[in-house]
Amino acid sequence: MDNTSSNTPLRVGILGGGRIGRVHAQSLIADPVEGVAQEVAALYGIPKWTLDASELIQDPEIDAVIICSPTDKHAEQIVEAAKHKKHIFCEKPIDLTLDVVNHAIKAVEDAGVKMMVGFNRRFDANFKRVRDAIARDEVGKLNMVRITSRDPGAPPIAYINVSGGMFCDMTIHDFDMARFLVGAEVDEVYAMAQSVNPEIAAAGDIDTAVVLLRFQNGVIAYIENSREAAYGYDQRVEVLGSKGSASCDNNYANTVVVSTKHAVQRDVPLHFFLERYMDAYVAEMETFIRVCNDESATVPVDGNDGREALLLAMAANKSLAENRPVKIAEVRPQ
Amino acid sequence: MDNTSSNTPLRVGILGGGRIGRVHAQSLIADPVEGVAQEVAALYGIPKWTLDASELIQDPEIDAVIICSPTDKHAEQIVEAAKHKKHIFCEKPIDLTLDVVNHAIKAVEDAGVKMMVGFNRRFDANFKRVRDAIARDEVGKLNMVRITSRDPGAPPIAYINVSGGMFCDMTIHDFDMARFLVGAEVDEVYAMAQSVNPEIAAAGDIDTAVVLLRFQNGVIAYIENSREAAYGYDQRVEVLGSKGSASCDNNYANTVVVSTKHAVQRDVPLHFFLERYMDAYVAEMETFIRVCNDESATVPVDGNDGREALLLAMAANKSLAENRPVKIAEVRPQ
Amino acid sequence: MDNTSSNTPLRVGILGGGRIGRVHAQSLIADPVEGVAQEVAALYGIPKWTLDASELIQDPEIDAVIICSPTDKHAEQIVEAAKHKKHIFCEKPIDLTLDVVNHAIKAVEDAGVKMMVGFNRRFDANFKRVRDAIARDEVGKLNMVRITSRDPGAPPIAYINVSGGMFCDMTIHDFDMARFLVGAEVDEVYAMAQSVNPEIAAAGDIDTAVVLLRFQNGVIAYIENSREAAYGYDQRVEVLGSKGSASCDNNYANTVVVSTKHAVQRDVPLHFFLERYMDAYVAEMETFIRVCNDESATVPVDGNDGREALLLAMAANKSLAENRPVKIAEVRPQ
Amino acid sequence: MDNTSSNTPLRVGILGGGRIGRVHAQSLIADPVEGVAQEVAALYGIPKWTLDASELIQDPEIDAVIICSPTDKHAEQIVEAAKHKKHIFCEKPIDLTLDVVNHAIKAVEDAGVKMMVGFNRRFDANFKRVRDAIARDEVGKLNMVRITSRDPGAPPIAYINVSGGMFCDMTIHDFDMARFLVGAEVDEVYAMAQSVNPEIAAAGDIDTAVVLLRFQNGVIAYIENSREAAYGYDQRVEVLGSKGSASCDNNYANTVVVSTKHAVQRDVPLHFFLERYMDAYVAEMETFIRVCNDESATVPVDGNDGREALLLAMAANKSLAENRPVKIAEVRPQ
Repeated sequence: MDNTSSNTPLRVGILGGGRIGRVHAQSLIADPVEGVAQEVAALYGIPKWTLDASELIQDPEIDAVIICSPTDKHAEQIVEAAKHKKHIFCEKPIDLTLDVVNHAIKAVEDAGVKMMVGFNRRFDANFKRVRDAIARDEVGKLNMVRITSRDPGAPPIAYINVSGGMFCDMTIHDFDMARFLVGAEVDEVYAMAQSVNPEIAAAGDIDTAVVLLRFQNGVIAYIENSREAAYGYDQRVEVLGSKGSASCDNNYANTVVVSTKHAVQRDVPLHFFLERYMDAYVAEMETFIRVCNDESATVPVDGNDGREALLLAMAANKSLAENRPVKIAEVRPQ
Repeated sequence: MDNTSSNTPLRVGILGGGRIGRVHAQSLIADPVEGVAQEVAALYGIPKWTLDASELIQDPEIDAVIICSPTDKHAEQIVEAAKHKKHIFCEKPIDLTLDVVNHAIKAVEDAGVKMMVGFNRRFDANFKRVRDAIARDEVGKLNMVRITSRDPGAPPIAYINVSGGMFCDMTIHDFDMARFLVGAEVDEVYAMAQSVNPEIAAAGDIDTAVVLLRFQNGVIAYIENSREAAYGYDQRVEVLGSKGSASCDNNYANTVVVSTKHAVQRDVPLHFFLERYMDAYVAEMETFIRVCNDESATVPVDGNDGREALLLAMAANKSLAENRPVKIAEVRPQ
Repeated sequence: MDNTSSNTPLRVGILGGGRIGRVHAQSLIADPVEGVAQEVAALYGIPKWTLDASELIQDPEIDAVIICSPTDKHAEQIVEAAKHKKHIFCEKPIDLTLDVVNHAIKAVEDAGVKMMVGFNRRFDANFKRVRDAIARDEVGKLNMVRITSRDPGAPPIAYINVSGGMFCDMTIHDFDMARFLVGAEVDEVYAMAQSVNPEIAAAGDIDTAVVLLRFQNGVIAYIENSREAAYGYDQRVEVLGSKGSASCDNNYANTVVVSTKHAVQRDVPLHFFLERYMDAYVAEMETFIRVCNDESATVPVDGNDGREALLLAMAANKSLAENRPVKIAEVRPQ
Repeated sequence: MDNTSSNTPLRVGILGGGRIGRVHAQSLIADPVEGVAQEVAALYGIPKWTLDASELIQDPEIDAVIICSPTDKHAEQIVEAAKHKKHIFCEKPIDLTLDVVNHAIKAVEDAGVKMMVGFNRRFDANFKRVRDAIARDEVGKLNMVRITSRDPGAPPIAYINVSGGMFCDMTIHDFDMARFLVGAEVDEVYAMAQSVNPEIAAAGDIDTAVVLLRFQNGVIAYIENSREAAYGYDQRVEVLGSKGSASCDNNYANTVVVSTKHAVQRDVPLHFFLERYMDAYVAEMETFIRVCNDESATVPVDGNDGREALLLAMAANKSLAENRPVKIAEVRPQ
């Protein structure tokens, strides 16, 4: 396999035709990288977007697969794709069980292919800029991280029931964001939560939580989640270091302010993740393709990142169940 | 010609391979309208993007042309395309001479094709929302309009020399914006200007101006232009009506604020029009394609809009030359 | 008269018991300058706040007078106070007639007392900071100034009838602000206006205007006024120079934003000038007292500033009447 | 004692001549309540501001005392003032020991005088507006409260050593704010903290913390504190309810934004609590005087509020020491 030549565009197949699969398809088409658009649009036009995942994974015409299937298919498709020497982009989470995650990661390592995990928020312009502020030492030695992450409404209970719970399904993005911003590993987790939606309570899940993370380097991060933000999607981070802070606001479709005698008002935020993170999805796919096309490049979000985020979710679940701070060492197998 | 069937996608050719031609090509590819992407990407891949405009205009495989050639080619290409029954998207301005503009418009009307003029800012999310605030009566009866429009730096003098002057080249967008927001025609114009850049002064042009427009319905609009905004592109409007105001802020690549003991700061605005208006360009192309595909639809920005904006620029030039308010009737041929 | 000793506090009398008189009385009491508060509070307690202006002006116990009487009393009280060697703080405008203004200024000069004119906005934290940005060369060589100044509603027609017209009554503050920011004199004025309130139209006045000022140093300033801002008082400035811009937002009573599914909203701005400029009034009085107490100090806003602002209002009136740009030289007596 | 007549102004004495004592003195003088200013200015002028607290407390000319002395004097002065039937305004905290607090509260109750505790932030325009949003049901049923409270730098170690620790000295304001916003009592507390300043670590205190509060009504509040915000004082709250959110920004001396090619920047926030809360101190004193002058009025922040905030600080200290969530019942004597 030789994808390093810029004359040979990467040939990508998409597994899973749901919402996020369409997003990635569109991102690939919109990709401004020279040569990618035509090629992917062509792929997109021919029947490489198939419901028979194995057929696509085994297709010798395909260099890489984008796994957007239901979570319980992720690991087996990773293993199969790795076996056929395809590069892999896998939506989060890899799996809800640590052993399965480890097995998938090992298959990728053994095959020598690249696997990138879909923590798309790392590619958001705001969060990337906050990370840059830390990396460039604009805020000095980091002391505290705040993540606010609210959904505009609860998903269907059927979804809740197979989601693995809020920490595995929703907060997992924030766990990754915390690791992304801090650039270190977590030592201890404490979670306080409630269910304001009675249906979610009945399903045994939570919808409102604050999770505290103590990192090994001393940084304290706190994540606030709600599945019930009536005004829409709300995604913000703020970091405090020895030299100062960096923070970002939520995103809106426009900046127009209407002032009348009653109020000064603007439109509600971008409704949900597709609107908010479309640019991030495009940037994520660009990165994946660039990395696949450059043999020496490493993926910026790999299997280990997927595993560590899952461990934090497991620790948060344990903390909630036992109402006590939980060390990551308690949930990490020896 | 039958483009009304949704099964037959519009076949588009692009005239002119400069910066704005590439933008439109990309917009077409990124177009999420069902069926458009594949088709245009295909066109984009085959040699329909040609330097021989006539060959493309005469191509029976083409339904519509996008004219992004130098201004002095616009009118003749419009006339030729109209003759070959192609729908036309033409970048602003149609021409710098009123007679030529009128001739081109007449050719379009005689041919019964559609022509849309590239006042892309009407498709910007902020300005569209301000227009909506007026249309929905959120601000009541309109009394005043402010347009702030600043470029991050002067173009090369070679460009200045063929541009027709700042009012025809740059302010023409703001003249159209004023008409778009007010939804009426202008009665009188007064312009005050200076040249802060000595090279522009030497070229006989201006780079800093305020233009006042009195509309026939009494609304007063004032446009402020600078070609020398050191911090980057700056595009804002504000309207005041009997019930209140609507205004928008400039656009930035991110919302991150870094606070240190020295200052609270954020990154400079999006640098220039390609960054700022990329979404507007895409929305503009989508609109053009939708309108071409629907025989009964009319274009939202037509030849007359192009002509009226040119008349305002001519009146502003006359006002500046004679240092007095100039009636539009003075520059409009009887 | 020896007020230079910090041991002898300035003894101040207030002429005029209207709204602005009460403001200044309160400012004096709130003054944190060592020794001022007690003393003025004492004055405030004893009957030095009198309706008999002459009695107060002649009172040997008084060092300075604050003239807040109706405009047509200003000049005669200035002359009388100067004659009795009192320092003078006079609300704007000094008078609506240039000869009378000149006479009052001459009386002040002949008496060797200090006179400060009540352009309180120079002491506003926002506008002062913009002026500082210019003075510190943060924005480079100044090219353009924008002043937005809107009242929350028209005053009673009875007031309009004696006000001297909007330019003399309301815009005069903005004329002073333009001179304050630019630090130069105006060469030419052009005004475009309308009356959206039919009662104001019937009274022969205007309520909506844009005034362009070309300064002798080339800077272009544009002032936008409305007496009909439904959402409340609105006071903003923005300057553009070779290095960048400085601008300020309007002022609000709080920064709270309430987000619901309908809108993201905050409370309307501070209603009017008393709320908005209370801090500026206090800073203005502090400055006046400091200057009076220091024989070598000069007032920051003097009779000449009052006169120049009046000349700009006169030129704007002439421009409006004749619909043409008017040179200041046309209205300035030789 | 009859203070209800508006003709008999309240006579107030101030105990303690430190920073906060001067603030209250100034607030009293600036008070716009009819009749208060003169009277207090007079008191301020005559030697009622004394270092001999007992003399003042016993002074029959005094109706009320403002206790701004060191914390260890508060309780004994409260008891003595209550004994002499003076109304009492006491700076926070009442005391660092629960028994002493209870003793002081009992003395006040037995004497039938009023005691108000100096949680000045309840009178801040932003926080009051957030509380109003909750009270008016603008945000629906409350689910979550965030409090960000950062100091611009650590106090001297000598102060730290007698402060009772960060939770009793600094966070106590935030504990009160959480109770003020939620309008209920706390069930459980968990605290995570660190010391980024080695001198504070050496003194056995912390300077960086997040404290989680679970209220009896299910609301989760999280408080973030830092004593090391390099950019200045930072005081914000945000609440999330079933209908939406209400949040406020930090406070700045002006709204001016300077844009250059390097950055878009504004001045740092108001430096510290005197600048930020001056208006709140004035409103607080006005409220105290109004309540004292109206026999039927109750104080808005009483001894019980002081005691509950102390209990939260004690629980947070215990949580930190034992690294576990602590029930308030554990620290509240039976």
